[in-house]
Amino acid sequence: MTQDLRIGIIGVGAMGADHAERVARRISGARLVAVSDPDTARAATLAAALDGVRVIGDPLALIGDAEVDAVIIASPGFAHAEQLMACLEHVKPVLCEKPLTMDAESSLRVVEAEHKVGRPLIQVGFMRRFDPEYARLKQLLDSGELGRTLLLHNVHRNKTVPATFRSEMIVRDSLVHEVDVARWLFGDEIVKITVHAPKPTSLVAEGVLDPQFAVFEMASGALADVEVFVNFQVGYEVRCEAVAEKGSATIGLGVDVLTKQAGHWGGAVPDDFRVRFGLAYDIEVQRWVNAAAKGEIDGPTAWDGYAAAAVCTAGVQSLQEGRPVEVEMVSRSEVLG
Amino acid sequence: MTQDLRIGIIGVGAMGADHAERVARRISGARLVAVSDPDTARAATLAAALDGVRVIGDPLALIGDAEVDAVIIASPGFAHAEQLMACLEHVKPVLCEKPLTMDAESSLRVVEAEHKVGRPLIQVGFMRRFDPEYARLKQLLDSGELGRTLLLHNVHRNKTVPATFRSEMIVRDSLVHEVDVARWLFGDEIVKITVHAPKPTSLVAEGVLDPQFAVFEMASGALADVEVFVNFQVGYEVRCEAVAEKGSATIGLGVDVLTKQAGHWGGAVPDDFRVRFGLAYDIEVQRWVNAAAKGEIDGPTAWDGYAAAAVCTAGVQSLQEGRPVEVEMVSRSEVLG
Amino acid sequence: MTQDLRIGIIGVGAMGADHAERVARRISGARLVAVSDPDTARAATLAAALDGVRVIGDPLALIGDAEVDAVIIASPGFAHAEQLMACLEHVKPVLCEKPLTMDAESSLRVVEAEHKVGRPLIQVGFMRRFDPEYARLKQLLDSGELGRTLLLHNVHRNKTVPATFRSEMIVRDSLVHEVDVARWLFGDEIVKITVHAPKPTSLVAEGVLDPQFAVFEMASGALADVEVFVNFQVGYEVRCEAVAEKGSATIGLGVDVLTKQAGHWGGAVPDDFRVRFGLAYDIEVQRWVNAAAKGEIDGPTAWDGYAAAAVCTAGVQSLQEGRPVEVEMVSRSEVLG
Amino acid sequence: MTQDLRIGIIGVGAMGADHAERVARRISGARLVAVSDPDTARAATLAAALDGVRVIGDPLALIGDAEVDAVIIASPGFAHAEQLMACLEHVKPVLCEKPLTMDAESSLRVVEAEHKVGRPLIQVGFMRRFDPEYARLKQLLDSGELGRTLLLHNVHRNKTVPATFRSEMIVRDSLVHEVDVARWLFGDEIVKITVHAPKPTSLVAEGVLDPQFAVFEMASGALADVEVFVNFQVGYEVRCEAVAEKGSATIGLGVDVLTKQAGHWGGAVPDDFRVRFGLAYDIEVQRWVNAAAKGEIDGPTAWDGYAAAAVCTAGVQSLQEGRPVEVEMVSRSEVLG
Repeated sequence: MTQDLRIGIIGVGAMGADHAERVARRISGARLVAVSDPDTARAATLAAALDGVRVIGDPLALIGDAEVDAVIIASPGFAHAEQLMACLEHVKPVLCEKPLTMDAESSLRVVEAEHKVGRPLIQVGFMRRFDPEYARLKQLLDSGELGRTLLLHNVHRNKTVPATFRSEMIVRDSLVHEVDVARWLFGDEIVKITVHAPKPTSLVAEGVLDPQFAVFEMASGALADVEVFVNFQVGYEVRCEAVAEKGSATIGLGVDVLTKQAGHWGGAVPDDFRVRFGLAYDIEVQRWVNAAAKGEIDGPTAWDGYAAAAVCTAGVQSLQEGRPVEVEMVSRSEVLG
Repeated sequence: MTQDLRIGIIGVGAMGADHAERVARRISGARLVAVSDPDTARAATLAAALDGVRVIGDPLALIGDAEVDAVIIASPGFAHAEQLMACLEHVKPVLCEKPLTMDAESSLRVVEAEHKVGRPLIQVGFMRRFDPEYARLKQLLDSGELGRTLLLHNVHRNKTVPATFRSEMIVRDSLVHEVDVARWLFGDEIVKITVHAPKPTSLVAEGVLDPQFAVFEMASGALADVEVFVNFQVGYEVRCEAVAEKGSATIGLGVDVLTKQAGHWGGAVPDDFRVRFGLAYDIEVQRWVNAAAKGEIDGPTAWDGYAAAAVCTAGVQSLQEGRPVEVEMVSRSEVLG
Repeated sequence: MTQDLRIGIIGVGAMGADHAERVARRISGARLVAVSDPDTARAATLAAALDGVRVIGDPLALIGDAEVDAVIIASPGFAHAEQLMACLEHVKPVLCEKPLTMDAESSLRVVEAEHKVGRPLIQVGFMRRFDPEYARLKQLLDSGELGRTLLLHNVHRNKTVPATFRSEMIVRDSLVHEVDVARWLFGDEIVKITVHAPKPTSLVAEGVLDPQFAVFEMASGALADVEVFVNFQVGYEVRCEAVAEKGSATIGLGVDVLTKQAGHWGGAVPDDFRVRFGLAYDIEVQRWVNAAAKGEIDGPTAWDGYAAAAVCTAGVQSLQEGRPVEVEMVSRSEVLG
Repeated sequence: MTQDLRIGIIGVGAMGADHAERVARRISGARLVAVSDPDTARAATLAAALDGVRVIGDPLALIGDAEVDAVIIASPGFAHAEQLMACLEHVKPVLCEKPLTMDAESSLRVVEAEHKVGRPLIQVGFMRRFDPEYARLKQLLDSGELGRTLLLHNVHRNKTVPATFRSEMIVRDSLVHEVDVARWLFGDEIVKITVHAPKPTSLVAEGVLDPQFAVFEMASGALADVEVFVNFQVGYEVRCEAVAEKGSATIGLGVDVLTKQAGHWGGAVPDDFRVRFGLAYDIEVQRWVNAAAKGEIDGPTAWDGYAAAAVCTAGVQSLQEGRPVEVEMVSRSEVLG
């Protein structure tokens, strides 16, 4: 058994706190050992809730700490450049929430600095690439089954954002995900961009251009368009439709990858229960482990097993005799008091 | 930091091997330390692939082993009774795949034996209760929003099963899941069961009654019906429709919980990206941890972060100037060689 | 050009009034000439709204009337037997709403009487057979593509029904549609029926058994089950899922025929715009004809044609020059005053 | 009863032949009396198949013919201007397939000529406005329930088109429908248009720019984007998503109007069977009328009525006695020979 990777997290706002919970409770082979946040009370509360986590005031101290093997950066974007440089200096792996930095120039300096270290240390938090739907879409497009991809139609909607979220942040913090999606799915660079600003929704602060509609032209001549609407009111919605020479594939409709090919629309029926219920098994076992460590159980009991057996015994009899059969069970209180 | 729970698994066929992989690689706070299987070669291969796992020939020895804190039973159903009794004897928590045992009588003896131990140790693998869709359905029905539940229409289909899977096993191994679902969703016992055997599909071994159609009558007067069809050819499919006084709710259509209420059909749009992409974040971080432990990264690189920043910089300019803007990027080979 | 078929309608409640409107306004080659209803005021109002329709008090007189070529019976079920017999006597074609008559015995007498006439005159209003979704389902099942049909799962729900709609009427007036669907889709007779009465919804009159759940056993050994729930509260819903040896097909989900076959679920994309917009063309032309007969138009005007041409002219220029182009249009008031 | 409107059709290619069949067989209150086509053999074959239709060689003679009350123009676009002018001269109502004419200038002359006639005579075949889905979308947007409409995302795909269908025709013949949709749904004019030409699919003739992607800017500041792809290979697909301040509504997904509002996605469940089965009733009665005029029936027979009654009689007994009941029916051959 290898040792757990000891992780420190910088920034424990919504995103960072989510990562802290994730590392502490759901990730195998890792241990959360330190957090850092300008709001030290927030950091302390979080650390207290998660066993064995230290608060380190200075984020650069966290990065340099001998007990921290790897870092997750979830601080605001303007702080990323300095923190990334510190990770490179200490040669520590880092998972950095998007954006890498605030502009192209500072990002390039980070790339160059990492290049000098001689091995990759920085991973950027474009987590769409890990979403099972996006991953299956990528696989389908790369398989060539649909021919060359011609167009992407993307939609990115948030319910609401704070009033501090201005027009340029919609580009840098929201559209940036779609930039990565287009680059990744096409395997190509964007060479020209148009960001249209239609007349804004009235449900937004004065002066904020929301929604926006962007058109990306790829080096290959392919096109991607994106609606970004961060005050949609309804809820969170992300979609991507790829249109290719011999069909289309869409994700984000709530039905995994929906394809249209050769006169048919639809999706895949899995062969196996593990596709449908794999996550249910993970949750079952994780909750059982958590409970068992405390001497408890957290799920169906032996009594439930007995009751099911009693019904199945009657069911087999019904099948054999071709008639309704009454289920015989002892009373629960008789057995369990 | 508490110690990891040390787990032994009995039976490493399809289900047990899946659990072994799960415990070893995805479950936080647990460690796989031992496996046992009559097919010792299979057990040895699995143990070799997963670091630090012992093979113990005798399942009862595994249960008694001092280094095993808790047990997962994934052996064939006929072996469960003896193994469960051993777990109770050693007072070890056990997660037992369904069915608890082969019939009502032996299951009742297990219940009684556990009762004598004085605290719950046995959890049965009715993992539907942990599936997010079933959990949300249960929550909706219990909320009372739809009124009293009147009917369940359930479907349980496998692509194919081995020829050894006979008519009675369809009841004991497949229908049993639906028995638990009906008991759990209604919070009530089944008092009468009819299992219909329509003329079987021709794509099944002679004498096997497949599909089957069961009707459960609940103590409260509610009704559940279930189609079980284990040689459906198409793939794996499980559905549950609950019909209540003021609406219906269905899961297994591939769109989470689909409700019909007050003139509308549909589902929920989540408020937050964490609902849509929570699993993507889990996968991202787990893969990053796995890679970082080996000094690698496994995801978007700093270059991807730079490229996105370059596009967003042009995008902000396009938004401000109301025209298409070309993206300026240095050449990759210039920077990275 | 053949002469229009002159039609008389008996009973102008909801169903009959709907048929009257249909015959008078949407059916080609037919003319509504007479209506009859015990509520003579209702009949008179309807006749007045539809040009050239007489009210005939006695339904038997309507059937015998020399100007009536064919009859639609939309009276209550108990009146059908006598009216059907009169149609047979006058050798007039009749479309009779379901049920044919109130019980098997009287229905058999009608069949025998028609047989004596020597040619078929009676069509029963099982209109599901004419629904495009049902028709495509029937065609698919008969094609043999899915193998032999093994099971039908049907659902029949009304929003509410009047308090006078008692338990037996649920069988005779609602379930009867599903009886015909099962007989028609299987091409087989029902040999045994079980009608379950689960504990009724509380939103129904005392003593009414609603919902009901029926199981039909076909002569061939196939099985059909039907939920009938006439006080569902939500709205009207009819579904039919056919489960066959190599796949399933469902209608009533709102997506035409949804199939599952060989690892895929989905439906057909039509080759042609006429499938998608055939009904739109019918409506367009019917409304244009109605308007033109009055010297009016009822749709997009020449101005709309001009505006579209102006945009397309600019669009072609944009395509050729690779840039945004402003649309040039004269002002509407300048041209049209 | 008013007289039928006597209709002449110019151009009986795919679209015109479809209209001929429609007028002759499905439209109430109209009669097809004449057709004209440069391919006189094609016109003659069509006329022969439809009772009582004359072939008139010269389209202008058809327009002037004393027996023609109204005209449908389904000739190629370049012929429209002259034929429309002739209709205006003869003061005859005309339904003209899109485009009105080939360019803005000639369309304007038609508008001016109609204006001089003093009453509207020309309807343009933008039949989307009559499609029930589009009509319900329009109604929803106009209701104000979703707030102001901000964006439209439209898709227009054909399976394939002939090689003669060049880049500009994609704008004039396909995009033109979307031009009308945007104008109609927004109730506003398009002031600027950009038509992007991404790298074309390889499955198209050299030099044809397909797919195309257009962005419309409306006078109000709203935006519409349209993908037109006329060699999509899969089949015919038309979609429209309207994004408004408080939600979105999409048609063309195959589920009528799909809305997203206030945390929910979904659609409407109709109150009444007439919404679900209205078309089935129309088809039933039209086919019954057609058959009855020939002394035949074309649907469920009296025997089907008897069989259903026999099953329902047994069903009522089952309901009353709480047990399976065998269905009693006389043998068909015994009664019908």
